[in-house]
Amino acid sequence: MFDYIDLMTKLSVANDKKIVLIVMDGLGGCELEQGGKTELAAANTPNLDELAKGGVCGLSDPIAPGFTPGSGPAHLSLFGYDPIRYEIGRGILAASGIGFELERTDVAARGNFATIGDGGEVTDRRAGRISTEKNAELCELLGGIEIDGVKIFVKPVKDHRCVAVFRGEGLGGDVADSDPQFVGKKPLKLAARSAGSEKTAEIANKFIEVVFDRLKGLQPANGMLMRGFDGFPSIPKMADVTKMNPGCIAVYPDYKGIARIIGMQVYEAGETVADEVECLKENFADHDFFYLHVKKTDSYGEDGNFDAKVHVIEELDAALPGIVGLKPDVIMVTGDHSTPALLKSHSWHPVPVLLNSDVCRRDAETRFDELACVSGGLGRVPSVSLMPLMMSNAAKLLKFGA
Amino acid sequence: MFDYIDLMTKLSVANDKKIVLIVMDGLGGCELEQGGKTELAAANTPNLDELAKGGVCGLSDPIAPGFTPGSGPAHLSLFGYDPIRYEIGRGILAASGIGFELERTDVAARGNFATIGDGGEVTDRRAGRISTEKNAELCELLGGIEIDGVKIFVKPVKDHRCVAVFRGEGLGGDVADSDPQFVGKKPLKLAARSAGSEKTAEIANKFIEVVFDRLKGLQPANGMLMRGFDGFPSIPKMADVTKMNPGCIAVYPDYKGIARIIGMQVYEAGETVADEVECLKENFADHDFFYLHVKKTDSYGEDGNFDAKVHVIEELDAALPGIVGLKPDVIMVTGDHSTPALLKSHSWHPVPVLLNSDVCRRDAETRFDELACVSGGLGRVPSVSLMPLMMSNAAKLLKFGA
Repeated sequence: MFDYIDLMTKLSVANDKKIVLIVMDGLGGCELEQGGKTELAAANTPNLDELAKGGVCGLSDPIAPGFTPGSGPAHLSLFGYDPIRYEIGRGILAASGIGFELERTDVAARGNFATIGDGGEVTDRRAGRISTEKNAELCELLGGIEIDGVKIFVKPVKDHRCVAVFRGEGLGGDVADSDPQFVGKKPLKLAARSAGSEKTAEIANKFIEVVFDRLKGLQPANGMLMRGFDGFPSIPKMADVTKMNPGCIAVYPDYKGIARIIGMQVYEAGETVADEVECLKENFADHDFFYLHVKKTDSYGEDGNFDAKVHVIEELDAALPGIVGLKPDVIMVTGDHSTPALLKSHSWHPVPVLLNSDVCRRDAETRFDELACVSGGLGRVPSVSLMPLMMSNAAKLLKFGA
Repeated sequence: MFDYIDLMTKLSVANDKKIVLIVMDGLGGCELEQGGKTELAAANTPNLDELAKGGVCGLSDPIAPGFTPGSGPAHLSLFGYDPIRYEIGRGILAASGIGFELERTDVAARGNFATIGDGGEVTDRRAGRISTEKNAELCELLGGIEIDGVKIFVKPVKDHRCVAVFRGEGLGGDVADSDPQFVGKKPLKLAARSAGSEKTAEIANKFIEVVFDRLKGLQPANGMLMRGFDGFPSIPKMADVTKMNPGCIAVYPDYKGIARIIGMQVYEAGETVADEVECLKENFADHDFFYLHVKKTDSYGEDGNFDAKVHVIEELDAALPGIVGLKPDVIMVTGDHSTPALLKSHSWHPVPVLLNSDVCRRDAETRFDELACVSGGLGRVPSVSLMPLMMSNAAKLLKFGA
């Protein structure tokens, strides 16, 4: 679609300038009714507005106008990777997210502990959302499984969700899910969707048998559903593309996972936005690019909780002086996608972007919200353009051609 | 990336309507400090503003948002050619620029007359920037060289810069530079960078021996460094793509060079903007497309001379009634890229565009500058879209599909 990875790889140069990219997940919103304000417009954000005054605003499309992205592609786009060309499977994302050290030949899948009825049918796809602690116990119980030379590592993620990593030779990642999606149906037999993944499907079916055997009689988690099989993605490291040394400050596993896959150094950033800013301060000397991720704008958007989302935006705004005070050369504030409380889901609406640097060519906007972004100097750009934009503002991209 | 050449070739039709494209090189600028104005905004431009009032404005990206283009790719983009697909080497550009009639099998390289010390090391990469006259004398001295059936033409460009054209059979253009880039180092042996260019490297090394021999004992120019080897680009003629008969009015060699490569008729346009407008008037009857290039906006931008760049913009503005008075059907005023005095270099900032025709769908802007262009009716478009836009405004593109 817009694939600038090769061009960036060719033109990037290292220097000492520092970039901070602040991603408020699902930042973009909608007014609840005609005449109302979006979450970002409703928020009281004196510090973001000050940054907008000295910067340039616009709107970005993670995929293309009209398409709603998942978190994975939306983040890849922010980091400059064409999300159509580069795909990261959910299993790989989950394994990376919990800090599992993947090897390039591994295949990973997400597992859900589930309740299975006497007739073999699924009676609860989430096993009553067991606790993460219970989940960890079950994963212990599933330790040390090896089938036909393939080792399988089962690790807890959160609640009823775990991840299974298959390590061995000749494993393809193109295997369909076993999750039948509906209660009352039996789990599906795992099947390769293309040549080269037959061995994975065969091993995984044997693995499932062992799992069901070991969980037999336990309640409510006496079975496992699998989905999101994938091999390690063939994706260049961010350091190779950009010549930058990137650091990730995020709280939630999936975002750490994406960051790890493209080779960022991932920090344990605590729990709150204030913790994250503290982590940024502590490690500011060690990187020239920081990705700082704020999760709860998205979570509250998904919950349909307009006011709580507004509050998280204000929380980031309050923490902003701590970031600006570090004097990075380039600050960008944006979202990975929109998650309007109105829709209780990710959406296709373009995402507000704010770029601040001494050489950004300022526009006339004095406020950071969707409406100001419509008339901002950046216009409407694909999200994959944001990485070259940040880099050029930091003099990290040479000119193309003479 | 955005390749519309095939589509334009298919849809273009000839008619009598006339288009004038005025390119102020490096037009786009930046404010020097927060609250300040860009060069274009600071300039007093009553005639451009009048044209904006009756036209439509916007911003364009020569490559893509965030990427800084060189002059070659930036111009190709303005003429509708995807600058990633079509590349023109510097040697070819230089040879075309001085009006050398290239054949499609030629290989050209830039030469710098240089001073070489007793130990064979470079002591001055520019031979004290000898005069163009001295350069011409030296090129005379290097006339008539033929090696293994390959004829080499050495022609002066400007100051210490010349061009060497290799004419013969089986010559590839992929040869690395001999310029070691630093004084104190010896010139590098010329080497093919890919299969098919070995013969060129071999001939060029023998050529260099002859050159050093003929220049022996001369001061300061007793040697030559070579760079920018390339073969003639495989690029369709503008007349074939657009069915137009294009004329070029430019003062600097490189821009005439690009124009010649895509088959424009190139005029000797004098020195000043007023000379160029005079040249346009004289030849207005003979073409339906004119490319009029103003160089010094870029030169002063590169010098960091904000006020002088403003002055050149005002000079063009003063000359504008002479162009408007010819009543072309479509006038576009833009730059090939931005060169803010703030940065003293080409930049990634999108380029202001003004399009005036009776059918352009006017916007509300009454002023031509970057800020007005942000809210202009064209929005932010790739520069390769400007040629189809001009052509459609002149009814020179048929509709696509029924």
